Amino acid sequence: MDMVRIAAGQINPIIGDFEGNCRKMEEAAKKAREAGCRLVVFPELSVSGYPPRDLLERRSFIKDNLNAVERLMENIQGIAVLLGYVERNGEPGENNLYNAALLFEDGRVLHKVRKRLLPTYDVFDERRYFEPGSESKPVMWNGVRLGITICEDMWNDKEVFESRKYRVDPVADLCDQGVELLINISASPFNTGKPAFRESLIASVARRHKVPVFYVNQVGGNDSLLFDGASLGFYSDGTLAVRAESFVEDLLVFEPKETSPQRIADVPACVEEEVYRALVMGTRDYVTKCGFKKVVIGLSGGIDSALTAAVAADALGAENVSTVFMPSEYTSSDNDEDTKGLAENLGCHFDVVPIAPMFDAFLGASDIFCREEHGITEQNIQARVRGTLLMALSNKTGALVLTTGNKSELAVGYCTLYGDMNGGLAVISDVPKTLVWDISRFINRNGEVIPQRIIDKVPSAELRPDQSDQDELPAYEVLDAILHAYVEQVKAPAEIVAMGYDAEVVADVVRRVEINEYKRQQAAPGLRVTAKAFGYGRRYPIAKRIA
Amino acid sequence: MDMVRIAAGQINPIIGDFEGNCRKMEEAAKKAREAGCRLVVFPELSVSGYPPRDLLERRSFIKDNLNAVERLMENIQGIAVLLGYVERNGEPGENNLYNAALLFEDGRVLHKVRKRLLPTYDVFDERRYFEPGSESKPVMWNGVRLGITICEDMWNDKEVFESRKYRVDPVADLCDQGVELLINISASPFNTGKPAFRESLIASVARRHKVPVFYVNQVGGNDSLLFDGASLGFYSDGTLAVRAESFVEDLLVFEPKETSPQRIADVPACVEEEVYRALVMGTRDYVTKCGFKKVVIGLSGGIDSALTAAVAADALGAENVSTVFMPSEYTSSDNDEDTKGLAENLGCHFDVVPIAPMFDAFLGASDIFCREEHGITEQNIQARVRGTLLMALSNKTGALVLTTGNKSELAVGYCTLYGDMNGGLAVISDVPKTLVWDISRFINRNGEVIPQRIIDKVPSAELRPDQSDQDELPAYEVLDAILHAYVEQVKAPAEIVAMGYDAEVVADVVRRVEINEYKRQQAAPGLRVTAKAFGYGRRYPIAKRIA
Repeated sequence: MDMVRIAAGQINPIIGDFEGNCRKMEEAAKKAREAGCRLVVFPELSVSGYPPRDLLERRSFIKDNLNAVERLMENIQGIAVLLGYVERNGEPGENNLYNAALLFEDGRVLHKVRKRLLPTYDVFDERRYFEPGSESKPVMWNGVRLGITICEDMWNDKEVFESRKYRVDPVADLCDQGVELLINISASPFNTGKPAFRESLIASVARRHKVPVFYVNQVGGNDSLLFDGASLGFYSDGTLAVRAESFVEDLLVFEPKETSPQRIADVPACVEEEVYRALVMGTRDYVTKCGFKKVVIGLSGGIDSALTAAVAADALGAENVSTVFMPSEYTSSDNDEDTKGLAENLGCHFDVVPIAPMFDAFLGASDIFCREEHGITEQNIQARVRGTLLMALSNKTGALVLTTGNKSELAVGYCTLYGDMNGGLAVISDVPKTLVWDISRFINRNGEVIPQRIIDKVPSAELRPDQSDQDELPAYEVLDAILHAYVEQVKAPAEIVAMGYDAEVVADVVRRVEINEYKRQQAAPGLRVTAKAFGYGRRYPIAKRIA
Repeated sequence: MDMVRIAAGQINPIIGDFEGNCRKMEEAAKKAREAGCRLVVFPELSVSGYPPRDLLERRSFIKDNLNAVERLMENIQGIAVLLGYVERNGEPGENNLYNAALLFEDGRVLHKVRKRLLPTYDVFDERRYFEPGSESKPVMWNGVRLGITICEDMWNDKEVFESRKYRVDPVADLCDQGVELLINISASPFNTGKPAFRESLIASVARRHKVPVFYVNQVGGNDSLLFDGASLGFYSDGTLAVRAESFVEDLLVFEPKETSPQRIADVPACVEEEVYRALVMGTRDYVTKCGFKKVVIGLSGGIDSALTAAVAADALGAENVSTVFMPSEYTSSDNDEDTKGLAENLGCHFDVVPIAPMFDAFLGASDIFCREEHGITEQNIQARVRGTLLMALSNKTGALVLTTGNKSELAVGYCTLYGDMNGGLAVISDVPKTLVWDISRFINRNGEVIPQRIIDKVPSAELRPDQSDQDELPAYEVLDAILHAYVEQVKAPAEIVAMGYDAEVVADVVRRVEINEYKRQQAAPGLRVTAKAFGYGRRYPIAKRIA
């Protein structure tokens, strides 16, 4: 292989924004050329953004995507381009599309690659849309024998995965034919620990096949899915050569034959930082890609809404975050001060709207509601009055409501549908409560952002006198451990009991998870930060019997 | 082929209720034996119910399903059984399960069949879970050469489908090997026109291959999906021999060699009856399978809530349906009388709860709300007060809230999230407004159930003075036609304009559909009665650009 300098255009596309995505690619190509690169590589489906979901069923969408490729082939000169796009399948097959990659240079198509391993699990539905490619062929470009794969194609290495999901290994197929540089274009969503695992996987691929690897990932949030970027280059001995920034757009230059140090951007130092940065990016992208600028958040004085506000202020600027405190007779006196302190620390607008007049009006609406003793009905009314107020503020100001529930409470239904669940985006709905605390402490590492009292106080819904979460739920360390085993690891209750948890507690948690499926199916989209989030990656029936 | 008498056990399973489903199958087998049958056939995945969705990812669920099969093999004697179950895949494959059929008799396994064509489109996710079977083999049973297929396996006939979805045709494969009777076990969801199309498909298969066909379908509602049953037997010349009842459980006896008349149950006589019966079944099953007995419905005086109440009363008995009328200052005086008249006609409990006190309390909560002129904010507050009242009544009485929005308004977002969209089930959310009227007239065919004035009045949200739907939306005949083309037929705006619709109107409707995706993703599950419902069969991004 001759000396070659190539670049990753780690872009943050908007789904279906062909004009905007093309502009980003043209700019990146220009910069790459100016940096002396001979090839610029873009992520999987970079032309349309990933995942386009059922937009792929629209013929006009496919046509727009092909037109965009033509435009890029015309506009980008003087540098070769490898990009991801949707190819029409002319052959008879189950699906009439391919998830494809195209290599072109100066208006001439040099090579096409079709994704062979189509993930169809969790949040992925690729078999719904695409026909798998049937072969892998290296391509000679500029004196270099390239092996090109698309995302999942690289995730079937027999030495990395104990049991492989697929029967074929496109990377091995390519390397068997002789390859001097492997390139993988990806849209690989983030979850905790994934960036590190990905690096070890790619290092192993490079080492095993004795070939440098260039890995180009999408960055940005598209609804629930967060892409961390962190594109990578590895030398043929498996050592890391280059790494792009995480959670932001970047242009990463890689020289596979170079041995002197190249740019290796830092990755987040701990899980708290990793998730925090993912949430900030995901919030910013959801809000702005939906065409909003401002958000409004109800602050309770508790940790969940505090973390949500801190994330939003970082994502959008404090001037674009309105907070409102909606106390009731059950609100403890600390919370007035704590919410105000938080808003001051963040620099956000802060309002107070007591809910008593509306709550009283509801209690008077029917004699089946009870002014004296507040059961579930009256507790829910309070949450729904607050939810309605937030939506009214949203309607008046054009600010998107961010909802503040965490994963633990969403799992067991410890939340009010049409109440505190109201909002366009559930910022921390995939963050377990124990991690909510950890991230809040991380935010405060260099000085108090979230008032310490908010972090220290005993969690309470404050919907009846002297309420505490832990009177109604197991301790959060126990709850989160059981939920992790049941929801993420898909363990059976008996297996969780065998891990050392109380059988009755496990049964109660499992029962709550199952009977509250109806709430989650009406929940706002949430930012996915674990390997198994509620939302469209977890598809359970509502009407069912659970053993 | 010798004379043989066989039966379809057209059962209504509950997902995951292995005990209950086994009991149903044992009872059906007993009845079939008593009717002189030598074989009883149950639907696809009859042991677990279809669709189990991600419950299939739980090892304990698969084990329970296998235990259920063992129990049935032990308990059912003196008659052969063909059932649907989940088989573990011991071979290396992408997925470790098969969607399978098992033929057994007196405790002995005679034959196994694995589904080859795995639908992965619309509401179907079978590639997410299953490995396709690789071959089709006939089996000799009781002197008859049987060809057994599972649901989609029969839906690839080259003479019926202009362009076939799959490369293989399991039915043709079997018939090429010589088959005396084809049996297909299905869980084929209903949509308008589907039962008639299905009959023409099966008739064609019988005729083309000159072989009798026995088609056994699941019946009942599982969340959004409605299965109409209507199991069928065709003679080898393609004439209909037997048909089971639609929308209820049935045991259907079929003698493939008989030529004298057998039982052919009626099917619904028109689309209105077809959809009405589907809605009644779907409402009953969702409510009862979720463990509820009663429902509560907000009546506005409009046609949507009237139809919903009529369906509910038929599904659950009028004594289990509570209705509540929640007037405001904008409610026209007719509606008091009309809602009361409807409740009387149906025999439902009827309450009146005026919303003024709550509405006024909200308007006073912040000086950004306006007492005088009511914009979107104030309109939404009214809807949300009503939604909160309904949920409070639900909490107090244990009745499930049924929400009443139709497909046309859900499509364009002419509804209030956390307001009139509140509820556990959206009964008519897949029924276009024009069909809502047609079904209401159908209900009144033998006398007034829904007061005529409700059918005749001009539709209005009644959230501000002199409001009318048609001031804010195109005429419903136009709107529904455009929506049918855009949502169900997935046509591009230009194609719809070419059909003769105004370009501006088309653009406006399309824009509304797209910007309101966020509302639909938080909507209650709705009963699917068209070929493309909103819900999990239609998966669109929220943050996107639309050309």
